[in-house]
Amino acid sequence: MAKPSVEPVGAAEVEFDHECDVLVVGFGAAGAAAAYEAAAAGADVLVLERSSGPGGTSAQSGGELYLGGGTRVQKACGFDDTPDDMFAFLTAALGPHADAEKLRLYCDGSVEHFEWFRARGVPFKESLFDAPGWMPYTDDGLMWLGENAWPYNEIARPAPRGHRPETPMFAGGILMDKLIAAAAEAGAVAHQDTSATNLVVDGAGRVAGVVARRFADRVVYRARRGVVLTSGGFVDNEEMLADHAPVLLGHDKVSDGTSDGSGIRMATALGAATRRMASVEIALTANPAVICRGMLVDGLGRRFINEDVYPGLFSHRAVQHQPGPYWAIIDEAGHDEIDEADMWGVRPKHAAETVAELEGSLGLPPGSLEATVETYNRFAERGEDPYFHKDPRWLRPLKGPFAAIDPADGFFGAGRHGAGTGAGGFTLGGLDTTVDGEVRNNSGEPIPGLYAAGRTASGIHGEGYISGTSLGDGTFFGRRAGRAAASGNREAGG
Amino acid sequence: MAKPSVEPVGAAEVEFDHECDVLVVGFGAAGAAAAYEAAAAGADVLVLERSSGPGGTSAQSGGELYLGGGTRVQKACGFDDTPDDMFAFLTAALGPHADAEKLRLYCDGSVEHFEWFRARGVPFKESLFDAPGWMPYTDDGLMWLGENAWPYNEIARPAPRGHRPETPMFAGGILMDKLIAAAAEAGAVAHQDTSATNLVVDGAGRVAGVVARRFADRVVYRARRGVVLTSGGFVDNEEMLADHAPVLLGHDKVSDGTSDGSGIRMATALGAATRRMASVEIALTANPAVICRGMLVDGLGRRFINEDVYPGLFSHRAVQHQPGPYWAIIDEAGHDEIDEADMWGVRPKHAAETVAELEGSLGLPPGSLEATVETYNRFAERGEDPYFHKDPRWLRPLKGPFAAIDPADGFFGAGRHGAGTGAGGFTLGGLDTTVDGEVRNNSGEPIPGLYAAGRTASGIHGEGYISGTSLGDGTFFGRRAGRAAASGNREAGG
Repeated sequence: MAKPSVEPVGAAEVEFDHECDVLVVGFGAAGAAAAYEAAAAGADVLVLERSSGPGGTSAQSGGELYLGGGTRVQKACGFDDTPDDMFAFLTAALGPHADAEKLRLYCDGSVEHFEWFRARGVPFKESLFDAPGWMPYTDDGLMWLGENAWPYNEIARPAPRGHRPETPMFAGGILMDKLIAAAAEAGAVAHQDTSATNLVVDGAGRVAGVVARRFADRVVYRARRGVVLTSGGFVDNEEMLADHAPVLLGHDKVSDGTSDGSGIRMATALGAATRRMASVEIALTANPAVICRGMLVDGLGRRFINEDVYPGLFSHRAVQHQPGPYWAIIDEAGHDEIDEADMWGVRPKHAAETVAELEGSLGLPPGSLEATVETYNRFAERGEDPYFHKDPRWLRPLKGPFAAIDPADGFFGAGRHGAGTGAGGFTLGGLDTTVDGEVRNNSGEPIPGLYAAGRTASGIHGEGYISGTSLGDGTFFGRRAGRAAASGNREAGG
Repeated sequence: MAKPSVEPVGAAEVEFDHECDVLVVGFGAAGAAAAYEAAAAGADVLVLERSSGPGGTSAQSGGELYLGGGTRVQKACGFDDTPDDMFAFLTAALGPHADAEKLRLYCDGSVEHFEWFRARGVPFKESLFDAPGWMPYTDDGLMWLGENAWPYNEIARPAPRGHRPETPMFAGGILMDKLIAAAAEAGAVAHQDTSATNLVVDGAGRVAGVVARRFADRVVYRARRGVVLTSGGFVDNEEMLADHAPVLLGHDKVSDGTSDGSGIRMATALGAATRRMASVEIALTANPAVICRGMLVDGLGRRFINEDVYPGLFSHRAVQHQPGPYWAIIDEAGHDEIDEADMWGVRPKHAAETVAELEGSLGLPPGSLEATVETYNRFAERGEDPYFHKDPRWLRPLKGPFAAIDPADGFFGAGRHGAGTGAGGFTLGGLDTTVDGEVRNNSGEPIPGLYAAGRTASGIHGEGYISGTSLGDGTFFGRRAGRAAASGNREAGG
């Protein structure tokens, strides 16, 4: 099948239209961080953005930043965190097989990184949102992301590390406004509506720029010191999903629509290595406030996890490992406890006086949900959950009337929209990079002049994910890549 | 970390020690098939093999070949199979996301491919081994591989398609003896103790040979028409496993020890694309004869599949998706039914009069296995398995005394050996190839002069696996790659 060529182009075959020291491809969070640092280090920086404005997927995100080790916000909220506890938690939660080298740097540098955001003008309110949820409906600056749930509460001293700009719900816009302004102020110049299509390579095998497309025009950029690829992942590229992360096929895409994998492909065309291309983030539109007080069951009416974990974890476990459909089960007493704002517009649809009735109306195997609820209640009576270790504060025998909610119905009365599966996500795998964002070839050596960060690269993640770790590692290693590119040796004759 | 370089070498920078038309790298099943066809088409063929003798992992395998559509053996055993039924079964069983284009050719060409093996002297006895199992302990030439288990029995008309050379247990040796002899007879010449390390590329970007190592010497080969990479997968390369298929880390390796991914890496270093690098085969040393009559439960005492499926499927479901440890549960009546030879040397270790006792000694959550057995028995009484649809012929209420077997104890009294997890496997992902074995670059175009087959390539598999599909597609597409390479245009000046 003919695809647009991503093959590298020889420097001798092109005429350059623009020149800079550091060329950043993609103006999301990682690109803004790289552009800021490269410009602050004195480099002449151009940023290419394929959309008509900057921000990318980051600007549409929740804006969570997974930070800790004793930030100002954590201290103000009364938590005494350490880089070691943060490292232990993330090693488990982003694993198995999280990247220990990157993670160590990320945790040790986390307080500094938090202060960097503050210095760029990102506002963080010094208050904790202390409830299970995907995103606070308040403007609190700190939230739990599963650190206090089993087994993580036994692996590291729990402290909340979800930091977020001061606004209710989606905070990615505020974050990106500040980072884009900071990059511009430092001197980085953006070229919008400009899609990089191919890397330009000189005779010595060094990346010397990119070929790009702006509407109908071909525009060629020379980068004297380095090219930093920060163009996102590949969730919008169906063929790449089928080849590398098929679990996301058919689900919604957490993306601004431009996560087409082009950064990854331009680099692999040049012989760059990849890592963890099958790793993904998946979110299921199940409401944590509901399932913490009730349960989440699979298509066989079985629980499969402690429902008080980080929501991305129950989502991942469901979509990757359990037979669907999934059902959030709640009783009247539990439902009545939940703040209206915390329901995210979800209305129980299937109501029944008994579990047997509910089970029948959901089409579950006969006796399956009854057995699940009977077992749950028997142990909940004693404040125990020997199967999954849900925290005792959520344990209470469930009593009729009951209701079930189909996550595929979505939040805020959306009904079945998009893919209609109730699940969506993005890709975590990408280019194999050093801690300074240098892109490695298949022999483990950096490709001269080529850097990557954000979801174009494989970051701190193994097979797991926690909110705020993608913006977190994208900006952290984006900054490092920007600095490394700015200090890169000039090419011969540059 | 410094790794041996797999970067391509320019043809102008080397002096060739040997020349041929078609150079095949790796003398397992795919390599033998490619070498035979290329030589039979009149090409001058050299085969490089890194070990001191040919055969590779294929020679140590069970020797199953997944073939059907109406072979001579199927007919003799009374089965009326069609390519369409075979296609429907494999689309489901190798999926989700099996390769439809390759699979269609594979199924339509299956009878011819079977006859090709016969013509090469591979003996197939025209009799059926009609019992659940990993491998027959008889010399029967045909076996079921889950075609008659739910849901596959509703997807395609069931017919057994596991074809195997006439010998009890491991038949890969016989298979490879015949294929190696056939390749030699056709004129292919093998260079042993010779490891290919880098591809040689000419100025036009065409693959023109390989650099290899033979003990301390560097030996350079010129291939006038094409290089066919058939050097296996990457299960023996821990770093590649961590990067691409971490689920196999820590488990046993189904390999002759040389599946180091070098063929894949040499090609990706040149900009070749990969597919499905996370797909794997996994086998759990649980005995199908036992669990069909009893049950297989996970670390929470729950069943998770109809135990009469193809054994690789219950293995895959367990290791990829269920919390361990896993237990094979059987009652005395079931145990007494099993032929001694069919026990594969397995001795029940944990015995108990009641399920409650057994559950306690296995350390399962209180009441968990009891609930599982109670539910199983209640429905088995009526010949039903509404959860997992095990065939009624295996359904019978289980009655004490009971026993449990830990798959990690292995077969044939091996005890805990190797990795000690009871699971092992190999990789299914690899280079992105056309149906003629041409290796594609990241733009979807064939790289001139470069071919691949067997586990160096991504074949017919999506995320699933069935015994005999790896030797099957390796030989089928190996033959096509050999023919395509033999007919390749000679390089300029060749």
